[in-house]
Parts: sequence; C-alpha cells; structure tokens
Amino acid sequence: MSNLLIKNLRPMAAAACDLLIRDGRIAAIGAGLEPGGAAVEDAKGAIAIPGLVEAHTHLDKTVWGMPWYAGRKGGVLQNLVDNERNERVPLGLDVHRQSMRHAIQLIETGTSHIRSHVDIDTDHGLTLLEGKIRTRDALAGLVDIQIVAFPQSGLMVRPGTYELLDATLANGADVVGGLDPSSFDRDPKASLDATFALAVKHGKPIDIHLHEPGELGAFTLEMIMERTRAHGLSGLVGVSHAFCLGMPDQARVAHLIEQVAALDIRIFSTGAPSASCPSLQALRAAGVKVGIGCDGIRDTWGPWGQPDMMDRARIVGMKNKMRRDDELEMLLHTASSGGADAMGVVGHVLGIGAAADLTLVAGETLAHAVVEQAARPMVVKAGRVVARGGKLCVDGVVMP
Amino acid sequence: MSNLLIKNLRPMAAAACDLLIRDGRIAAIGAGLEPGGAAVEDAKGAIAIPGLVEAHTHLDKTVWGMPWYAGRKGGVLQNLVDNERNERVPLGLDVHRQSMRHAIQLIETGTSHIRSHVDIDTDHGLTLLEGKIRTRDALAGLVDIQIVAFPQSGLMVRPGTYELLDATLANGADVVGGLDPSSFDRDPKASLDATFALAVKHGKPIDIHLHEPGELGAFTLEMIMERTRAHGLSGLVGVSHAFCLGMPDQARVAHLIEQVAALDIRIFSTGAPSASCPSLQALRAAGVKVGIGCDGIRDTWGPWGQPDMMDRARIVGMKNKMRRDDELEMLLHTASSGGADAMGVVGHVLGIGAAADLTLVAGETLAHAVVEQAARPMVVKAGRVVARGGKLCVDGVVMP
Repeated sequence: MSNLLIKNLRPMAAAACDLLIRDGRIAAIGAGLEPGGAAVEDAKGAIAIPGLVEAHTHLDKTVWGMPWYAGRKGGVLQNLVDNERNERVPLGLDVHRQSMRHAIQLIETGTSHIRSHVDIDTDHGLTLLEGKIRTRDALAGLVDIQIVAFPQSGLMVRPGTYELLDATLANGADVVGGLDPSSFDRDPKASLDATFALAVKHGKPIDIHLHEPGELGAFTLEMIMERTRAHGLSGLVGVSHAFCLGMPDQARVAHLIEQVAALDIRIFSTGAPSASCPSLQALRAAGVKVGIGCDGIRDTWGPWGQPDMMDRARIVGMKNKMRRDDELEMLLHTASSGGADAMGVVGHVLGIGAAADLTLVAGETLAHAVVEQAARPMVVKAGRVVARGGKLCVDGVVMP
Repeated sequence: MSNLLIKNLRPMAAAACDLLIRDGRIAAIGAGLEPGGAAVEDAKGAIAIPGLVEAHTHLDKTVWGMPWYAGRKGGVLQNLVDNERNERVPLGLDVHRQSMRHAIQLIETGTSHIRSHVDIDTDHGLTLLEGKIRTRDALAGLVDIQIVAFPQSGLMVRPGTYELLDATLANGADVVGGLDPSSFDRDPKASLDATFALAVKHGKPIDIHLHEPGELGAFTLEMIMERTRAHGLSGLVGVSHAFCLGMPDQARVAHLIEQVAALDIRIFSTGAPSASCPSLQALRAAGVKVGIGCDGIRDTWGPWGQPDMMDRARIVGMKNKMRRDDELEMLLHTASSGGADAMGVVGHVLGIGAAADLTLVAGETLAHAVVEQAARPMVVKAGRVVARGGKLCVDGVVMP
C-alpha cells in the first residue's frame, strides 16, 4: 500500500522520467523504473512539483456552498471581527462542514499542507476548534493541517481568552496565534508576553497576525523580535501579513528585514491587493523563509478568494510586479517547498526519501504552470492519488 | 433574423421574466411573452446583464496559444517597450491570429464591446493596425471593437510617428492614443499639442496612457485638462491608468478628481495590483465615467491576465477593498454599462429599444455573480447567441 510508480513525469520541469513511491515515500526517480508490484500511473509528460502549501488561511470562516451572504460590512477591523462573531450562529456556519468544503477544494487544487488559524473567543469557547479537529482527522492522509490557536476577537481586550488559548493548545492546536498586539489588543507588552508565555509553556511555535501599518507595525515587530531573542525562539516565530514591511521608507524596511532574517522569523504573506505588503523578492533575497496563503475565502469578511494556491500565487506575483520566468519559479517555490519550510515542515521536495506529496501541473515550464489556470491533472499525497482533474479521488473513485 | 425570445431570465437579478428581441434590439421585457416566430431560448432563471465591456486592452500583444514565452524583462517601461518592438517579428507574433484568439475568448466570457489600443511605431508602420482591422471585420456582429492609435514607442521621441498616427486615424482607428507625455515622451507640451491636434483634425476622441505617478502625473493630467478645456473637448478625452490619482495626498487627489469630473474626462483603470490606482469608489462618487479593462494579457511584457472581464472585475474589486454587495454591484456596472458609457457607447442597458447585447451569468445575486468564477451560460450579441457555456457559437454550432 502507498506504493506507486508514476511514469513519464517531469520533476520540476526537468526531462521526463519515472518516479517510484514505496511506503508513501519517494524511493527512486529515473528512466525506465520497474513497478515491482506497485500500481502504475501515466503522467503523460506533465510537470510534477511538491504539493502546494497553503501557509495562511482560516478554514473555520468560509460560507462557500451556503446561500449567498449579503451582510458584509465595511469599516475598520473591529467591525469585521464583531460582525463575524455575531453572525456565526444565526448563519448556521458549521465549522466542520465548511472547513471540509474548503480543505477538500485545496486538496483538489494540489495542496498537501495547510496552516489554518481557528478563532478562539469567549463567545464560542473551543467549539470552533472541535469542528476543525474533526476535519483534520477526517482528512488525515489526504492533507496535513496545522492548527493555529487564534484570538480573533483579541487577547487582552477579551478577558478569559488567555485561558481558552491555553486549553486550545493543550487540546490539539499546533501553533500559538496572535492579533495586532498594539492596534487591536491595545497593550503590546502584555499581549506579547502572554503569547510568548503560551509558546514556552506548550513548546509550540508562534504565528502572529500583524496588520499594523508603517511605524506602528515596525514598533510591534521590534517587540516581537526582542522576545524572540530573549526566549531563544529563533526559527519558531512567524509573522503573518507584516504590512509594515511594505511601508515606503526603504532604508527602514531593509534594516527590519535584516533583523527578521537574523532571528529566522518566518513571514506569511497573502499579497493583499489593497494593502502595502512586504516585497517577496526582498524577503527572499535576505534569506527570510516565506510562505504564502489565500487568507479567508468567501467569508463574512469579504467575498473574494479561491481555494487554490495557484490562484493565490498569481495574486502575490502580480502584487510583486513579477514578470520574468526566474521570478515566477521563485514564486512557485514559495507556494510549495518554501512555504513548507517556513511552516516547519522539513524536506518537502521531490527527492529520494521525501514524503511522496506531489502535484502534477499543466504547462510547458514552471513559469507557465504558475499562470495557466488549469485543473491539476493529478494530486498525490503520501503516495496515494487523492485528486484527478481537479476532483477529489476517494479510494480510487473520482468524485463527480 | 436576430429575432429571439429568451424565457426565464432575471434582468439585473430582478424577478424571472422573458425578454423578446426584434431585429437585434430589445423589444419587450415581461412575463409570458410570445415568440411570434422568433427562436426561443430558456435561460433557466439565470441573471442577465448587459454585455461586459473591456475598456482597456491591447489585442495586438498577447502570445496566448503560442509556445511559452520565456524572454520577459524586468526594469523600466522603456525596456519593456523596446523588448516587445524588437521581439514581434522574431517571435512570429501575427497580430491577426493573436487578436482573434484574444477577442474570441473575450466574447466567450461575455464581452460585447472592446476598446483596444494598437501599437503604431516607425518599425512596424501600419502593419499591426491592418491585422487588427482584419480581426475587427471578421468579428463584426460578434463583438464591437474600438481601435485606439497608440504610440507605444513614443511620439516626440520617435520622429515619423505623428505621420503614422495621422494615417492610422485616416485608415480605420477610432480614437487618438498617447503615452506618458512627460516621463516617456520627454516633452509634454509638444506631445499633448500633437495629440489634441490629431483629435481635432480627425474629429475623434482621445485616450492617453498616463502611468506617471504622483505629482508628475498630476502635472501632466493638468496639462491634459487645460487642453480639454481650451479645445472644448469635454466628454471626448479619456485617461487610462491615471496612477497619479492613487497618490497619498488625499486633498490633492480630491481636487484633481473634481476637475476631471467637471471636464467629463473619462478614466480607464486596470486596477494594476502593483501600482497606486485611483479609487473606483471616489471616482464614481464624484460622477466620473469609468471603464475597466484587463490591459495586456500574457504578452511580452508580463505573464499575467485572463481574457475575462469578470476576472478583471475581481482584481479591481480586491484592489479597491470592496466587500459589500452594493460595492460589488457598482463594480459590475463599471464592467458593463458604465464602461460602455465611458467609451462613448450610449444606451448599453437592458432596456426597451437598446441593442440586444446581453450576457447570462451564474450566481444568486449580482454580487455573487461577480465573485463566482463560472462559465457564462449564454452570450447574446445583437440578438444572436454568440457563445454558450464559455464556448464560441458560430452559426448555431458551439465550438468544442
């Protein structure tokens, strides 16, 4: 089981060859491999890449597949947060059902790893976590899901949330989340001290949403870095969005990125079209580990987004003014191996001994594959075919 | 001929009814209409909107359907312009073939009107124009194409271009184009005087590419407005991109937009993800007529873009931080009736007597239709079904 010979694929657009999987891991890559009892698939010359990596999303938010939601609000972050918290129950937003819909579409579009934040607030307690853990368990073997305990309604501004985060981390969450320690939580020192205390207590990494722009964001980022250094947590702290690294003062940004790189802070970007985002090229040039993600898709916050990392790569690429093939290849790397690395998933490459998580993509070259909006011909997770032609494949049967 | 009864459609998401077309025009909208000899189609309750309007593109540039083009360059505008001008012949970029591919996909995605710039330069003379006129003629009755005579390599900086533009306007172009009179053409006074002289001579409207950012763009925009006023050309001058109207100084921008509105200058925006674009909401609130467009798609400049105005609406909507249903409805209006109005196409609405150019879209509401990435069920041009399910329909036969 989980033995598979895929013939005639082009690993990372190299010359066509075969790829043999044994016990869910890549056992051989080369010409004329023999199946030795493994099932055989024909890739028909398609390019193979490591599975796509959705490094920042919210599986507990989408209304995909539900009646059209017409109640979206404008205004500041607090409006959007409050609207969602108040609407979840009246809308009948069942987290298990909705996160299944969301995650399965990510599988169908070739995603092998997901990092998903889950809202933890004093209205809902751990109920959203439970729905998402059910989804993680149901999809085990089809996709790996990291869960971030995320204080979406605030930590310091909502007493009782700390204890809930603590319980979340004791009950299956993988990462400690956070939200705008200054602009939203109104007490950056206490907020960050609490976040880092949870990380140290549970021995888990951190991933903080930082929408704060300009110098305010830079100030908070500095406080995050001070604590990363003090606690010796290099490589274990991530910052999502990091809009402040998109501010105009290029000298200031360069200095911040230098420190981010030195402390091995991971950056997760969604390439938000309406915000000032960090330059992917500048982060990568400085050696920062970067992941990209779709963020929420079609939820109470906003109508946009597709459950497809290739769609998101396109948004990030356009935002970063990428044109050249080498830039598109770097973008694709960030949406797969690079994002996995940033999330702490090691060895997510097409190499001997690596987990056999790979996706066939349409296109003549890697750059072409990024822009070509075509269904993924085949998605393989741990050596098993989990989707064909953009449709989930369960126990060998393709869904209609 | 061109008589058609479409049953069970929802005009602008209103209650389901029938729509009768006589001689290519909408003759009646109501319940239980009788065909009276017209062919009958069933819209199955789909929403109908006026045909989508591609208000800014370059049909002569795409390499869609050709082998992957790996030679894209980075750097300044001049690099991109020179690379394209030098690559056209070696690449075998046949303007007729490529503009057919591009325009037909726009038809398939529900577009009834296109404004397309055509490169006029001293290397190619009028050859690109000829290819595009051939396409315009071949697609007559399927889509309306306005051609803008566009000095892509510059006007003042390339002597001989003025004469070519003059000949282009005498030989089938509909609109006088221009390109960055200050930053690219290096002589805003002479460049704009020449552009306006051509408009006056040929009695044709103007559409100037203005990428110039910040105060430089504002200065050039002022010069455009001075000439619009002096020549009495209100309503006949358009500015494409107008990145300067996205600059941070909100008071300055508000004052410029006020003048743009007073002179009825039309703005054509592509919502460029990597640039500072004018706020669609601010322009519309001031009463400015706005069109949106995909710009070039997959050409020697860049790999991005889809030949689909719904895809572009999504890019423009995300860029403008649109979330609410009323904002999405305004966005859709800009991508159809509003854009037509900005291009000088009058009466592009679902009303009695209007040309029967309409598109069925998937979705429960207009807002839903904007974000739902689904094939258009049916596209009707002048009362004739020209596409079904996203595929061109020629003489009643759907293309495979």
